[in-house]
Formats: sequence, structure tokens, C-alpha cells
Amino acid sequence: MKRINTSPISGAQELLPAAQATFDKLKGILADVYHMHGFSNIETPVIERSEILLAKAGGDTEKQIYKVIKTAESAESADQALRFDHTVPLARYVVEHESDLVFPFKVSQIGESFRGERAQKGRFREFYQCDADIVGRGDLPIEYDADVISTFLDALSKFELGTPILARINNRKILSGLLEALGISDKSGAVFDVIDHAEKVTPEQTKEAFAELGLDNATISKLMAFSGLHGDREMVVGNLRGIGIENDMFSAGVSELDKVMRILELDGRGKEIEADMKIVRGLDYYTGTVFEFILPEYKKIGSVCGGGRYENLTGYFTEQSFPGVGGSIGLTRLFYVLNENNLVKSQEEKTVDVALMPLGENELEFALKLAREFRDKGESVTIVAGDKKLGDKMKYASKLAKRGIVLGENEVQSGSYEVKEFF
Amino acid sequence: MKRINTSPISGAQELLPAAQATFDKLKGILADVYHMHGFSNIETPVIERSEILLAKAGGDTEKQIYKVIKTAESAESADQALRFDHTVPLARYVVEHESDLVFPFKVSQIGESFRGERAQKGRFREFYQCDADIVGRGDLPIEYDADVISTFLDALSKFELGTPILARINNRKILSGLLEALGISDKSGAVFDVIDHAEKVTPEQTKEAFAELGLDNATISKLMAFSGLHGDREMVVGNLRGIGIENDMFSAGVSELDKVMRILELDGRGKEIEADMKIVRGLDYYTGTVFEFILPEYKKIGSVCGGGRYENLTGYFTEQSFPGVGGSIGLTRLFYVLNENNLVKSQEEKTVDVALMPLGENELEFALKLAREFRDKGESVTIVAGDKKLGDKMKYASKLAKRGIVLGENEVQSGSYEVKEFF
Repeated sequence: MKRINTSPISGAQELLPAAQATFDKLKGILADVYHMHGFSNIETPVIERSEILLAKAGGDTEKQIYKVIKTAESAESADQALRFDHTVPLARYVVEHESDLVFPFKVSQIGESFRGERAQKGRFREFYQCDADIVGRGDLPIEYDADVISTFLDALSKFELGTPILARINNRKILSGLLEALGISDKSGAVFDVIDHAEKVTPEQTKEAFAELGLDNATISKLMAFSGLHGDREMVVGNLRGIGIENDMFSAGVSELDKVMRILELDGRGKEIEADMKIVRGLDYYTGTVFEFILPEYKKIGSVCGGGRYENLTGYFTEQSFPGVGGSIGLTRLFYVLNENNLVKSQEEKTVDVALMPLGENELEFALKLAREFRDKGESVTIVAGDKKLGDKMKYASKLAKRGIVLGENEVQSGSYEVKEFF
Repeated sequence: MKRINTSPISGAQELLPAAQATFDKLKGILADVYHMHGFSNIETPVIERSEILLAKAGGDTEKQIYKVIKTAESAESADQALRFDHTVPLARYVVEHESDLVFPFKVSQIGESFRGERAQKGRFREFYQCDADIVGRGDLPIEYDADVISTFLDALSKFELGTPILARINNRKILSGLLEALGISDKSGAVFDVIDHAEKVTPEQTKEAFAELGLDNATISKLMAFSGLHGDREMVVGNLRGIGIENDMFSAGVSELDKVMRILELDGRGKEIEADMKIVRGLDYYTGTVFEFILPEYKKIGSVCGGGRYENLTGYFTEQSFPGVGGSIGLTRLFYVLNENNLVKSQEEKTVDVALMPLGENELEFALKLAREFRDKGESVTIVAGDKKLGDKMKYASKLAKRGIVLGENEVQSGSYEVKEFF
């Protein structure tokens, strides 16, 4: 009986009310934890001037950008597009409002981003990203790197997934220093890429990829051994310090990694954190700490949160220096994969606490009064209206609400009523 | 020192953190009140197929639609656009998910819509709409019209604006019945428009506008007297019943208006509601109850909430009947005008409750422990890191937080500390 196709666009999440309630609950947890850790929430517009977005995009991202045009073109209509993440708009926001902000600026952003990716299962074109960042002016102490990681650990643990969460932490300076020592700094971009993809292919394929870069066998062996290094701080830092590399870049990276992880240990983190030399992150703007969270018992899910330190993200917009550290939880994708693996505790199917069923108009006043009383006690209430038969009202109420109350003449006169629990 | 223009696009709201916190608080109030009244929240995608949006748009709205295109065009890229309201996507959602929903479906939507309007003060191209609707299948009892109005009254009163709110209520059937009785039903669209604009012009101009429609003086007098009728239910309904119009449309409209307002009275509404024959609402899909909320002491602000009953919104998508009643609060515009009139209680400028200032690394562990204790008690905490001088830390903390705690050797050893209130 449909006249036209009413499906949502492909690549978008559209949930039924009960699933939406669960999604909203997780989003609320993130907002709350970010707030409790001292992050201020901001919102930038969904639409940005293309100039701003393209300043940093490049490559695949650029191809995925959605441009927007007004149907009625006018001279006013500028070159605009939908944001593809929160990081570039944040850089713009910080530069624009610099004189009104307090630095270090702890800032959260929860909202949708848009990418015209090829539609496929679990890939979204329109999706929530929930970011937390700390941006300094001029400098930003390394302690804030631990602050961000700790915030994400608290946030995800509040999801009560019933499976451990592991924050895999690295520092890009370590690999950069190693490449410097090996005399292959000129190939660092390509080497970073190979290590970034190492977990998606076999070790043999990784070796081949290194060989294709023209690296000799000795170098490849060193890189393979290095990128395989992961575990607790003492072991990994001890190993790195034993390699015998002395350059400043390498030493700085190891010290920073050591410090970030020591702070997390002081904060009571043990098995939830691991140093891991395979973590480099795909984006080229990271300059120090990088991290990626996984669920070790569900490796296939991949990263559930990622981020890092960026010294120069605002460089496209200003000459001033605003180093930052931050990360993002891609909530729409995460919600999808968590559900696929039955890791989300669903909210009650029933979104209403109490359904009141006045038998007729005479009972409506009492129902309205009762509704107010329940709401004042924090319970959500709906009044089932109309002159349907009680059986029909009851059927409707039982689908919708946890409890039902029938209100007839007796109830109005006595002021007392029976609460029926629906199961 | 800026390298490029970092302003947001024109026609978008971009707030500093303290103002954003106030905006988020109001948004949270709406979400909470809708929930407490038994509305389930849903989210439809921001991007819709143009076919869906254009089904209902037409006229100015069509010209204001933002189309989206992928930068890298492909065969896959369909004809898509950004939603301009929540009503059309809701109609699509109801038809698409009909078999999974429970009717009457009480549903809320809080999210952004997009319109390429000419940019001017207080007009937004990207703005929040916070909708609540009740959709029936086949039929929808008139009691739900009162339910929606009552929900919006509760929502806006929680804003604590310190000025009265007035819900002006009408029923389109009354005017339609009157025009039928006057023998000018063929001009009803134009007459509705003139009455809809009557408050923006002088009575003389309204009379002229009627005259331009070819109406005679006697008819114009009747319309002027009719549209000036407003006040409490008894008076207005009494007057309408005394006019001597007998057609079914008119009688149905008067009865519905009477019933909706009687229910609101039973719910304790007195001075907050008024019957008003000037309220017709601009959108042509309304078929019965229509309402518009104003702040009578701030008439210039105009409508702060509006909506009505629509019998046939899904008619473009399906042959099934889904009558509905609902309304919308345009929160971005409302926030703007409320601020202009100093009607919003701002959230504290300071978004953090407690700033902890450990003097050095030795005090960090204690600070981390204390931070957890405060958070468990519901207080937001930030730790001021780095080796800046205490004076600098204190200055930063006082800008950001309501209270500050300095943690040195003594505090760690004794476990006690002094809380400094910042003003």
C-alpha cells in the first residue's frame, strides 16, 4: 500500500524507539563522563566552508566529502560542505574564539559527521562521533595525554560491556627516532603505513611490504622485532632503553610513553593499558602519544576508540601554536558492532513507566492529577485516551508501559487504585 | 596572525562553552519533559532522498532546501538533501516502520534542520527543532491534542523564564465552517493567509487584503469580528455557538476546541491557555486543532512553539491513514531571542566544580584518587597539570572552576586539604 519507497538513505542508522533509547543512553554516558572529567561541551555547525575542511582533508577524505548546494542558487551561496570529523572544526573553533577560551581548553564534542563512503555493512555515511580533546596555547604538559586516555577508559567502562577493554598506547616519536637511527627517515611515511596495516595482513605480507620499500633484510628484521613489542610499561620501556638508540627523538618518545603510562598506573590502571609499538594511527597529524582501544576478547571488532597528540593541527589557520591531545569514539559504528556481538545491555523495550487508563471522561481529571504526581516522582506517564474498550486499552498499555492503572468511578471516589505490573 | 578566515558559516549558531552549557541544559529539559510525558525519542537521518522531502515541501521551502552531492560523483550518488524539518521525516519513519510501532505512537525528535534562508539577525540556516508528536493508526482521539499542548506547556515552564507563557488555541474547522456558511469556501486558502498575517499588519491593511480577494464589506466585517474573538473557553465557545452557524464543519470545530480546552482546564491550566480565532498556522497540512505559544509580556518575540492536528501527512507515502497531532519548539531561534531579552538564566560561567592543583609529581597520585572521590559524588573535576608556578595554576583554576584545592606534601601526608572558593 506504500506509494513511494520510504526507507532511509543507505549508510544511515535509523533505530526503532527501544534501540534508540539504548543508543541515547550510551551517548548520555559519554556526555556525562566527559563533563565529570572537566571537559566543556561545544557544538560547531554541521556545514563548514569547504576551504576549512579541505585545509586538512586530502586523499580519501577529500573524495568522501559531501558538498551542499542550495536548490535555488544565488550569489550568496558559498562553497560549503558537511563536516567529516570534529577535529578540523575544533581547530577552526579554537583559532576563532581563542581570546574567549581558557587554556588548556578541555573540550568535548558529540555530534554527527558525514562521509560519502561506499555503503556496506557496518560502514556509515552519517554517524556520531564523540570526541574529547585538550588544547593548549603555546604548550601542553604531557600529563594531559594521560588525562584523555583515562577519560575514555572511564567512559567505555561505564558502558558495562561485560568484557575487558584494553588501551594500546604508543608514542610516534619512538618509531621516528628508530627510523632516524636506521637511516631511513626519508621513508617514514611509508613505514608508518606498513606498521599501521600490519594487523590486517600476515607477518609475511608485512615483510614483503617492507621489502617493496627497498629496505634490506637486517632493517626489516629490526622493524619486525620492534613492531612486535608490546606489554606492560616496565617491560616495554626497559626493552626500548636496552636497544641502544640514543637520538633525542627516540629518547623523548620513550620518556613520554613512560610518563603517560606511569600516570595511568597511579590512577589505578593495570590490565586496562598496554604499551604497543604496532599502534601508529593512520592520520598524519599525530606527533607523539597515539592510542587505540580494543576489546581483546572481540578482536574482530577492531578499534573502539582512538586518538593521540597533535602539535600543529591549527597550523593551517594561524601562526600561533595550539598543541592538543584528544580522541574519538565512533558511537554509531560502535553501537552497531556491539549489538552484533550482543555486548550492549538493551534498555527496557518499554519506554514508559506508567500507563493510566481512565474509563471515561469523568475519570480524566483524576488521571491528569495522578500523572502529575507520578512525574514529580520521576516516572514517565502516558494517559491512554479515547473510548476504546478496556481490553484494547489494556493491550496497548501492556505493550508500551511497565505498569498500568485502570481508573473508574470507584478509584476516583476512594482515591486508591490497583497497579498492574506488565511483563 | 590568522592565515585564513575561521568564522563559522553565516546563519549558524556557534556558542562559547558557558553559553553552550545553558543551551544544552534547555535541550535536556525538553528531552526530559517529553520523556516524562511518555514520548519515545527517535532520530531520523539528516540526509533524506529529495523525493521524500519534496513530496511535501513546495513553495518557499523547496527553494530553501540544501542538496548534497559527493565530491567524487559516482553512479551510486543519489539525489539527496538535508531535512528542513522533522515532520516529513517522521511521516516517512511511521510508514516505513509501521509494523514495529505501537499506536498511538507518542514520539519526540530533537535535532538539527537546515534551510538556506537569507541570512539575517535571528534567522538560522542550521537550527535545532525539538518536536513532540502523537500519531494514530486509522484514528486518534481528540484527547491527544490536549496531551501535546500540555506537554509543551510543561516543557516551556521548566525553562523558568520568569514571564508568563500563553498557549493560543484554535481549530481550523471553525474557520472552514464559517467560510462555508459565508459561501466563500473557494477562497479559504487566501482567507487563511490573510488572517495568519493579521498580527503583522494594521487592521486597515487586513481589511484591504480581504477586499483584494473580492469580498464584500458585510463579509469583511464578519471576518474581522470573527478573527478578533479570543479569550477563555466559555466566552469564546459561547460566542461561537451564538453566531447561528449550523454546518457540521463549524460545529465539529467548536466541539473539538471546547473539549481540548476543557481537558487542559481539568489539568489545572487557567491563564496559560486562551482560545484565539486569529491562530490558523501557515502550513497547509493542519486540519483541526492549531496552537501557537507566545510570551504575552514579550509579544515581539513571536511564536515560541507551534503545531496542530494533521489528518493526512503520510498521504504522500501510503494509502493507510495515520492522523497525528504535534508541534515543535525551534530551540536555536528561541535561545537567541530569549537571550536578547535577558530571559534565560545562564548556567554558571564555570563548567567545572573542582580544580585540583598538585604541586608536583609526588602529589599526582593523591590528586587522581581525590578526583575519583569527587566524581563519585557527582562533581566534575579537572587536574591542573604541568610544572607552572602555583600562582599561574591558581589563576587558571579560578577562571575555570568553582573551587580549587592545592595539594602539596602536607596534604598528601595528612590526607586533609583546604578548599578555596573562587568567586
